[in-house]
Amino acid sequence: MSSDTICALATASGGAIAVIRVSGPKAIEITNAIVIKDISKAKSATLHYTELTDNVDYVLISVFRAPHSYTGEDTTEISSHGGYYITQQILSMLQEHGARMALPGEFTQRSFMNGKMDLSQAESVADLIAATNKATHNMAMSQLRGNFRKDLEDLRQKLLKLTSLLELELDFSDQDITFTDREQVLQTAQVILKQINQLRQSFKVGNAIKNGISVAIIGAPNVGKSKLLNTFLHEEKAIVSNIKGTTRDTIEDVVQIHGTTFRFIDTAGIRKTKDQIEKMGIERSLQAAERADIIILLTDKDNQFPDVRIPEGKPVLKVVNKCDMTLPSASFLYHKMPTDNIYHISAITGDGMERLTEGLVRAAAIPEINENDTIVTNVRHFQALNKAHGSLMRAIKSIRQEVPNDLVAQDLRECLHHLGEITGGTITSDEVLQNIFRNFCVGK
Amino acid sequence: MSSDTICALATASGGAIAVIRVSGPKAIEITNAIVIKDISKAKSATLHYTELTDNVDYVLISVFRAPHSYTGEDTTEISSHGGYYITQQILSMLQEHGARMALPGEFTQRSFMNGKMDLSQAESVADLIAATNKATHNMAMSQLRGNFRKDLEDLRQKLLKLTSLLELELDFSDQDITFTDREQVLQTAQVILKQINQLRQSFKVGNAIKNGISVAIIGAPNVGKSKLLNTFLHEEKAIVSNIKGTTRDTIEDVVQIHGTTFRFIDTAGIRKTKDQIEKMGIERSLQAAERADIIILLTDKDNQFPDVRIPEGKPVLKVVNKCDMTLPSASFLYHKMPTDNIYHISAITGDGMERLTEGLVRAAAIPEINENDTIVTNVRHFQALNKAHGSLMRAIKSIRQEVPNDLVAQDLRECLHHLGEITGGTITSDEVLQNIFRNFCVGK
Repeated sequence: MSSDTICALATASGGAIAVIRVSGPKAIEITNAIVIKDISKAKSATLHYTELTDNVDYVLISVFRAPHSYTGEDTTEISSHGGYYITQQILSMLQEHGARMALPGEFTQRSFMNGKMDLSQAESVADLIAATNKATHNMAMSQLRGNFRKDLEDLRQKLLKLTSLLELELDFSDQDITFTDREQVLQTAQVILKQINQLRQSFKVGNAIKNGISVAIIGAPNVGKSKLLNTFLHEEKAIVSNIKGTTRDTIEDVVQIHGTTFRFIDTAGIRKTKDQIEKMGIERSLQAAERADIIILLTDKDNQFPDVRIPEGKPVLKVVNKCDMTLPSASFLYHKMPTDNIYHISAITGDGMERLTEGLVRAAAIPEINENDTIVTNVRHFQALNKAHGSLMRAIKSIRQEVPNDLVAQDLRECLHHLGEITGGTITSDEVLQNIFRNFCVGK
Repeated sequence: MSSDTICALATASGGAIAVIRVSGPKAIEITNAIVIKDISKAKSATLHYTELTDNVDYVLISVFRAPHSYTGEDTTEISSHGGYYITQQILSMLQEHGARMALPGEFTQRSFMNGKMDLSQAESVADLIAATNKATHNMAMSQLRGNFRKDLEDLRQKLLKLTSLLELELDFSDQDITFTDREQVLQTAQVILKQINQLRQSFKVGNAIKNGISVAIIGAPNVGKSKLLNTFLHEEKAIVSNIKGTTRDTIEDVVQIHGTTFRFIDTAGIRKTKDQIEKMGIERSLQAAERADIIILLTDKDNQFPDVRIPEGKPVLKVVNKCDMTLPSASFLYHKMPTDNIYHISAITGDGMERLTEGLVRAAAIPEINENDTIVTNVRHFQALNKAHGSLMRAIKSIRQEVPNDLVAQDLRECLHHLGEITGGTITSDEVLQNIFRNFCVGK
């Protein structure tokens, strides 16, 4: 339990109503000190309409007693009129009576510290708030509901059983008795490995859904890259001009297509140039192509696509722009089925854009996310899984090579340790925790 | 009672938590339809932790039963995680089950319609949320607490008594009996008039506090008007340059000094010019001086203040700028007490600014607002008071001229009608009400 009491505005400023949260051993006492009505004896989960001292406002107070609150501590929520002056006054009054301003994510951190949720659930809260579409929401919600936690608990139980088997044999090893069927140990370890690998693989999808599919638009100068980006964005954010080489910096913007987030990267036109700054821009274009999930090669002349090295397996869409100048509008119909994955469009008139958009969604190949699927979306979790995978691989190798059990058991314990980092069970450093929570918003 | 059920997001988007309000005859039934737990029988002022259907979120629901709610109707408040996706989903679900999106201020409008507050109180809610300092907050809070309402009720009682006296006499007028002491009637009418006048006069202060004291800075080109404005603002918002005649448009910006809002108006330099556009700018400067509450006449040479017609009684501060070039820094000390209301400053170094600021606050002459003072801040209320004043003046004149009682009584009834417009008692048009509430934020 924390020894101090924290407070923060939990709603964004500017609304009709505001909610201020107070949590800690003195939450009810401090809140009671700033209101007219006596709420010191209030039962948990009760609502109280009262007035603040000093005529500040009429408020509605929700009282929650430990452990029946978000943080697991005594908590109050003060619901006041929105507005800058009132909320600042309330926070000042709470501080005068002994509360301190909460750090970002500190309410959720306390919830974790008090065992109300594991770390993977706590981290999902920030994702849940940031969710902008059904897929990101479902992933975060599944994690908050503890699906990932359950998977990890299952892995932990299997690993513990395996370790205890090996260690049991260890105890009797001087008696030369072999309790463990090595083949069976190996099989169990491989089942665990498979599960860890499935989680690791889910990160590719999870990361793409959470951070968006990056699409690099590559082409010669003046083929309409910026215009195509704008057509995707439905607004004019990039500078569009007919002077060759306008776009020297990569511009990135985000658009939701059929519930998937795409990050379009507008790049400098690829051409031979002596301008040093432009050269750097072109270099950046090529790097963007390397990193992007999908590449659009853009031209305004049939079959003259830019000559860029495409990493193996990366989806490429070849797009011929400015077809309003070369094709009569009706001719777009003949191009309904793109041959050789070539799309004919006019970014100006919008002709062919629908087909290109469909092609893009297909290339992204995002599977539908079920609300109970465990999808790893967090880089920290992915890294911990990779480390757990490494330890388990070593253990399996050792089992195969008939290395002594105590060495195998050590690798398995390492694997357990890395999985425990995800749920927070094996994190003992405050600094690590603070790093995790400081990306949260204040009041959460 | 309203026949339909409304819903809206009551908090600003982007916070850790969001609150959605539902009000109307089916508020509880509709909310119940979108959550797992059965809250249909929930008592008033109770809290319920439950989950939304379709895995949308875990939420905390506050239930209020009519008439014990803000609107006086059955109401629920759904407290969810903040974030765009979740709040949009909840609003969609509520609409699917029969709620409709609330108009701006519609919750407060219903509160007024259901007799929970009068119109002056309802209007103070928007002011309370918009309050940025103690003075504006206290004025709004006093109004919300019903102080203005009580004053108006007191006036109404007095006017009703007066009218009934006159009408009683009217009933017996054919019997030639005089019940009323005309002198006493006159005295009572004048007491009422005095009270109405006090309220009318408070608007000058109320309006100044609410909308800020306007200060026009008038001077020849290049004396440093824009620089002075920037020094007040502590930031660079106006374009400052040494080219004469840069500032052709009046720039206005707002700064809080000692809890009072000042609106500084930067104007075009006053000089003889043939430039038509500049002439228009100068004309606008002179108009700004006419309208401003306080005028600062700025020069960079002693005793060469611009020659501007100053409306009688308007506070003027004469300011000599660029004293860093003419006075050694220590010399500012000798100018501590400005003679003839002349302030020596350097807008560049900041010397003398503190004294000028104090002079400005003195010139604004804003009295301290007590939290129980009735201060009229609303133009609509001021206009209604003016109309009530006009009617009462006519009544008093008629009493003096011994005009028949029925004509006097008619003026008194008109006076009552105008006062009733403030509390809303005599407003029967929906359109008028909608105009009042449409400036509110949604969810209030």
